[in-house]
Amino acid sequence: MTSSARPGGRTAAVRDAVLSATADLLVEAGLGGIELTAVADRAGVGKSTVYRRWRTVPALVADLLVDMAETSLPRANTGTLRGDLLANAVLVRRTLSDRRQGRLFKAIIAAAACDPQTAQALAGFYTARLAEFAPIVTEGIARGEAPRGTDAAEVIRYISAPLYYQFLTTTRSLTVSDAERAVDAAMAAVTAGVFVRS
Amino acid sequence: MTSSARPGGRTAAVRDAVLSATADLLVEAGLGGIELTAVADRAGVGKSTVYRRWRTVPALVADLLVDMAETSLPRANTGTLRGDLLANAVLVRRTLSDRRQGRLFKAIIAAAACDPQTAQALAGFYTARLAEFAPIVTEGIARGEAPRGTDAAEVIRYISAPLYYQFLTTTRSLTVSDAERAVDAAMAAVTAGVFVRS
Repeated sequence: MTSSARPGGRTAAVRDAVLSATADLLVEAGLGGIELTAVADRAGVGKSTVYRRWRTVPALVADLLVDMAETSLPRANTGTLRGDLLANAVLVRRTLSDRRQGRLFKAIIAAAACDPQTAQALAGFYTARLAEFAPIVTEGIARGEAPRGTDAAEVIRYISAPLYYQFLTTTRSLTVSDAERAVDAAMAAVTAGVFVRS
Repeated sequence: MTSSARPGGRTAAVRDAVLSATADLLVEAGLGGIELTAVADRAGVGKSTVYRRWRTVPALVADLLVDMAETSLPRANTGTLRGDLLANAVLVRRTLSDRRQGRLFKAIIAAAACDPQTAQALAGFYTARLAEFAPIVTEGIARGEAPRGTDAAEVIRYISAPLYYQFLTTTRSLTVSDAERAVDAAMAAVTAGVFVRS
């Protein structure tokens, strides 16, 4: 990653290099393969800079998740609830199926399973993504495509859930049909009023 | 665990002790805390026995998953599709919410994210559980509670998916309401024919 990739000068360039190195090492070796010294080497940054700014591996992974949330793709806007949810499901499927991104998510979810600070940071990442995607549902409600009082965030979670569950507990690849089925199932539940807050 | 816990004499007693120690160490320290030597010490079994019989940590975790599948609770039989699915969802919720079981599942899913042999073994565990639970749906089809051609295994996966997704990506506790919502959503999708194989 070059320093021209993002504005902010030298500090931002150092952060880019360090977070990029962190992601590289997580992809290549998983959580066990990551140490601040190795990250500094990979990033071409002084060890003292990395130790002073991030202090621990969980803090580094937490900052990577902040960066991932900030640089994630925006929601689609197709004009229909179903179309927007399908675009979201296809994006989730593409992310998890991508060799690099898939490994990165697996490594971070594994890290979150073992470490409370990483679990908090991962929850923060999904909260940020929900804030991006929930308006898909609130706009659908306004257009009369979903019952009033439908819990927008819960609908978005129900789109991701079967895709993540398959990704994490099976060795089957995720297909576009899997993404479509997730949307069909969530839409049936939306229509039946399952997500209306009581 | 005492040797009277399961039939099979000394060999079975050694396996029980070793797998119980493996689970203990995974719960206490996660995947990073587990080594064959520590397992042997904890189990009160000779190191050479553990090395000869299991050889590697992934092989040990794989055997633990075989044992977990064999000793898991059977499905409920309430007489209705909805009742059986709800009993299943409540069981999943209870398992993931249990302090020991929840940590064990997190540690194993984390291990599977980093290691292909563990991923295979975890997929085998869920295949065994699906074989136990899928008849809930085929019996529901026979009673006219679900459309013919409904993919039984997929319905069961859709019950677990939102519970596992919340468990793995948020810091929110799983409630009985969460289990009920998973059933309501899956039932709406079943009724709408979403899981009918094309």
